[in-house]
Amino acid sequence: MTFSAICTKQTISDYLALLDPLVDEARFHLGAEGIRSTMADPATVACVDANLDAGAFESYEADGETIAVNLGKLKDMLSVASSDELVYLDLNEETRKLDITAGVVDYSLALIDPEAIRDEPTFTDIDDSEFVVDGRTLLTAGTAADNLDENDHITLGFDTLDEQFTVTAQGDTDDMDIAIDREDLIAVSAYEAGGTTLLSLDYFQAVLKPITKDVDVRIQLKDDHPLRLTFDPSEDCTAQYMIAPRIQRD
Amino acid sequence: MTFSAICTKQTISDYLALLDPLVDEARFHLGAEGIRSTMADPATVACVDANLDAGAFESYEADGETIAVNLGKLKDMLSVASSDELVYLDLNEETRKLDITAGVVDYSLALIDPEAIRDEPTFTDIDDSEFVVDGRTLLTAGTAADNLDENDHITLGFDTLDEQFTVTAQGDTDDMDIAIDREDLIAVSAYEAGGTTLLSLDYFQAVLKPITKDVDVRIQLKDDHPLRLTFDPSEDCTAQYMIAPRIQRD
Amino acid sequence: MTFSAICTKQTISDYLALLDPLVDEARFHLGAEGIRSTMADPATVACVDANLDAGAFESYEADGETIAVNLGKLKDMLSVASSDELVYLDLNEETRKLDITAGVVDYSLALIDPEAIRDEPTFTDIDDSEFVVDGRTLLTAGTAADNLDENDHITLGFDTLDEQFTVTAQGDTDDMDIAIDREDLIAVSAYEAGGTTLLSLDYFQAVLKPITKDVDVRIQLKDDHPLRLTFDPSEDCTAQYMIAPRIQRD
Repeated sequence: MTFSAICTKQTISDYLALLDPLVDEARFHLGAEGIRSTMADPATVACVDANLDAGAFESYEADGETIAVNLGKLKDMLSVASSDELVYLDLNEETRKLDITAGVVDYSLALIDPEAIRDEPTFTDIDDSEFVVDGRTLLTAGTAADNLDENDHITLGFDTLDEQFTVTAQGDTDDMDIAIDREDLIAVSAYEAGGTTLLSLDYFQAVLKPITKDVDVRIQLKDDHPLRLTFDPSEDCTAQYMIAPRIQRD
Repeated sequence: MTFSAICTKQTISDYLALLDPLVDEARFHLGAEGIRSTMADPATVACVDANLDAGAFESYEADGETIAVNLGKLKDMLSVASSDELVYLDLNEETRKLDITAGVVDYSLALIDPEAIRDEPTFTDIDDSEFVVDGRTLLTAGTAADNLDENDHITLGFDTLDEQFTVTAQGDTDDMDIAIDREDLIAVSAYEAGGTTLLSLDYFQAVLKPITKDVDVRIQLKDDHPLRLTFDPSEDCTAQYMIAPRIQRD
Repeated sequence: MTFSAICTKQTISDYLALLDPLVDEARFHLGAEGIRSTMADPATVACVDANLDAGAFESYEADGETIAVNLGKLKDMLSVASSDELVYLDLNEETRKLDITAGVVDYSLALIDPEAIRDEPTFTDIDDSEFVVDGRTLLTAGTAADNLDENDHITLGFDTLDEQFTVTAQGDTDDMDIAIDREDLIAVSAYEAGGTTLLSLDYFQAVLKPITKDVDVRIQLKDDHPLRLTFDPSEDCTAQYMIAPRIQRD
């Protein structure tokens, strides 16, 4: 049982921000290659898989232990460090706590039983439509759907006829739609089968939280299947989300 | 029934901000010369008359239709565009909705029956005292009156003896006054008759919302008559407000 | 009974900010040398002694009167002036109110009976340990202790063995500590007797409010005695706080 890592506060904070929209308590697999966290939200509507490579750290040593912590507590503790300040994380074998040094402060954070957290979800492959869009478009889609009165859904799709990525939402009396032509997308890998998926707007907005305007987001979708979003928050970090579809409304 | 207009998000947002302090639902007269909105607040204490000239638009076509919309919904929809991005507004004859394109988003906004909104108020001429003051002074007056405990009124006046624009307010135990000499006002057209008017502070603060520090505001007042404020928010936009006086307290 | 003073809004605001964390109503001794305020908080757990020298004013005249005012009202009134604008304070003998001119506004602020405010506390000398630390370290200590779940205490001490200034706090399951070596402190006047003092975290956080990162703060402490903090917010201003210790928890 060994885990000893040093990285900037920014690096670890950006990584935790990937988990934060879906869970309060996070389980981490501390592998030799880096940290991995794969979890579903309490309602198992959405799940996240986030990796932070050993290369993102100034120093990194781990032998495959799995731990779990309260995410809010960990974030609070890191808050005393400035963005580019180094943070020291060490698993204390004796106390079975996580020793954290952030700036002048030494913290000791109690661990949670990793078994108490839901099982790891499986990320299935969804291959009917697959294309890449910029974060800005997704953020706009979320905001526009949220602007409609009495609306809590959003539909993402790929229209094979017009060769367009489409987002639509209907409020009580108003509606919105976005249509991005194939040539305005960053990349299109597959779209012949098309497909649309209706999502809970709350969950869609949640997974958008760590997505910035300029990041490229790979979308995979299929009729009434989960939506899968994949992106690289930074050089040594990868993230993917899956959101289960809602049953189509009449 | 034709209405088709293109302008920057900033232009239309600044115009809507003139109506926002007084009403939730706004009626617009879409004339050939531009958009005009003349309305009273629900309690008919204050009223607004705001014009946006056709010249403020990149493109403008209208034939005199009157429509009404929920102001909050319209503002939310425009929020996805950046300030200098163009916004497209089209009255859809078929659906009888307002089609709005803001950035990549196409919205359809339900109209409200214009008859359901209170009749247009009449802006009477008030000519005892008429002078021009900078927005900064009025904003300071509103804040200073609001700082007094248990105060919900403000009195504006012109003192013919001292040749001063005066603002006074009394709290429970404290009071404030402002006196601006004639030569420190931007212009004085008439003041021989003087006069003071006691206003609800809430309404005074409401109509100050779209007023910036550097804008010149024409004030017309007369003993126990409504206060009238006129200013040009921008080159192709004019605005005036009238606030009914409260009965003088003992 | 004379009091007539002129200073920038910033100067008087910074001074009032020293009192604000502990009291709503403030008593001021208007002496020939400057303004002094010495008060305890309502629960008499903490007390403040703050002086603003006559030299901080553009013009200052006083003959030893003691007045009291509502701090919130005074701050609100000053809010209409910009930071470097001059503020005029005059004790009006006739109305027995404080006349305040801030920007274009003349205010009249009712005085409170100074007798109605708790007696002046006495600042005792605490000489077991005395050293100087930068504001940044104290602010970090307050934040770090506040990050722990279910924690409302903080312990400051000087460890004579390791020659370190120490701060510790325990949450429900987590804990934090800070240890600053003697050579990393700005100055150490006395420490042979060491000592630790357990404080209410709320009060510690309160007195930190006017402390900035770069200010040097002199700390005096002794086992289970009040903590005393002394610093100079600016050239012509001095401040000291004392916080009574809580009984040690098991």
